[in-house]
Amino acid sequence: MKWVRFKKGNCEYTAFLAEETLHAVEGDIYTGDWHKTGELFLLAEVELMAPCRPTKVVCIGLNYRDHAQEMGEALPAEPILFLKPPSAVIGAGQFILYPEWIGRMDYEAELAVVIGKRGKNIAAGDAWQHIFGYTCGNDITARHLQKKDGQWSRAKSFDTFCPLGPWIVTEIDASALDISLTVNGELKQQSSTTQLVANPAQLVAFVTRVMTLEAGDVILTGTPAGVGPLKPGDSVTVRIGSVGELTNTVIAES
Amino acid sequence: MKWVRFKKGNCEYTAFLAEETLHAVEGDIYTGDWHKTGELFLLAEVELMAPCRPTKVVCIGLNYRDHAQEMGEALPAEPILFLKPPSAVIGAGQFILYPEWIGRMDYEAELAVVIGKRGKNIAAGDAWQHIFGYTCGNDITARHLQKKDGQWSRAKSFDTFCPLGPWIVTEIDASALDISLTVNGELKQQSSTTQLVANPAQLVAFVTRVMTLEAGDVILTGTPAGVGPLKPGDSVTVRIGSVGELTNTVIAES
Repeated sequence: MKWVRFKKGNCEYTAFLAEETLHAVEGDIYTGDWHKTGELFLLAEVELMAPCRPTKVVCIGLNYRDHAQEMGEALPAEPILFLKPPSAVIGAGQFILYPEWIGRMDYEAELAVVIGKRGKNIAAGDAWQHIFGYTCGNDITARHLQKKDGQWSRAKSFDTFCPLGPWIVTEIDASALDISLTVNGELKQQSSTTQLVANPAQLVAFVTRVMTLEAGDVILTGTPAGVGPLKPGDSVTVRIGSVGELTNTVIAES
Repeated sequence: MKWVRFKKGNCEYTAFLAEETLHAVEGDIYTGDWHKTGELFLLAEVELMAPCRPTKVVCIGLNYRDHAQEMGEALPAEPILFLKPPSAVIGAGQFILYPEWIGRMDYEAELAVVIGKRGKNIAAGDAWQHIFGYTCGNDITARHLQKKDGQWSRAKSFDTFCPLGPWIVTEIDASALDISLTVNGELKQQSSTTQLVANPAQLVAFVTRVMTLEAGDVILTGTPAGVGPLKPGDSVTVRIGSVGELTNTVIAES
């Protein structure tokens, strides 16, 4: 299924997508305790929001072999973990705000894992029971600040620096998905989730050795090679195999 | 005023403390739109919770001159920012869980700023309008992991690694508060907020240049010199001038 959150007028909805029609639901999509409200909408006529409301976005650094190489970083023995705040999350079609003073701002295409069931110390073999589905993510990064600070948190935490969407796709195998990114239609990143150092199940185990993950929380699984800068006016699209396409446009922060 | 959150039986309450009596309230303590419910409780008879429910905990590294020196780090030109997830937050009297595999786990006494009003790009001169009050914080840190990872996020993000409390104190001047920490009654850290490199108002300005802060969000302002390890059975207390005392006991994670 494809799970969507959207706005129409002053109201916010959760729905599943069938063909081009959104079927609004009430209840908890993560536990399965939901029902259709009977309201129908056309996908083209609504304003998409991020498909989940994470209490935290846990990001993994240097998790594709090719990206570690281009950044001049040795492949870490364990995944490198950092966080983005919920205030950074936006949905498909929403603007990425560029604060001019930060200098270079980069795109990073990422497969996003959406958690469906709360857990701590989850074994990799049990992780599939805690993964609700997948969506596209873009780990927008203030590259100059990242290098200057040493710590990556500030560079990754600006408002709008975590586009997620367009929807959560459930019941798919994420082990061999094509992942690519274009800027204004030009191909910039192209890889496959077969190139991940740690796969989603291993990452759920790794992260929950540290912290409890909640339903709706997100793990961004790292970006492949080809990262580069964005400027105001750019349209950036993350495409992931059977998941979908996430497009956002950059505008200068006023 | 002193604002408290607590459990009694199966219910959770927000209240203000007058002498030893908790006056339960309903409404929004941040906007001032609240009223007393008439229910009274004795402080000694309730289970305290963290006094706020942050959507994010923004931490500042190396913000006391003496601590930067003991860590062998140059004082940064700008504050170093990192995040703790909401899942790390506990209240006064709750257990700090020590996962044995992490090796050394340290205390770090910190003044915690609690935000009262949502904002982005707040000028330091206007920051006081956005600060609701102050509480005590303990930035528990897996010291070996912090050094091994380079990025501090994993080492700082374990469940229970962000004790906050016992209450939020409003309408105080935080510019010259004594701050100290004891382990089993033995003094380990002793300093004053006069030693902060960046003060709370400057930190609100610094953080909101990056991200929107929400009511209930927390900024941990950094720790003074004297950090050191904790082990199961230890009782650790952060004391801050007119704010209060935050005590937690360490137990091994089972």
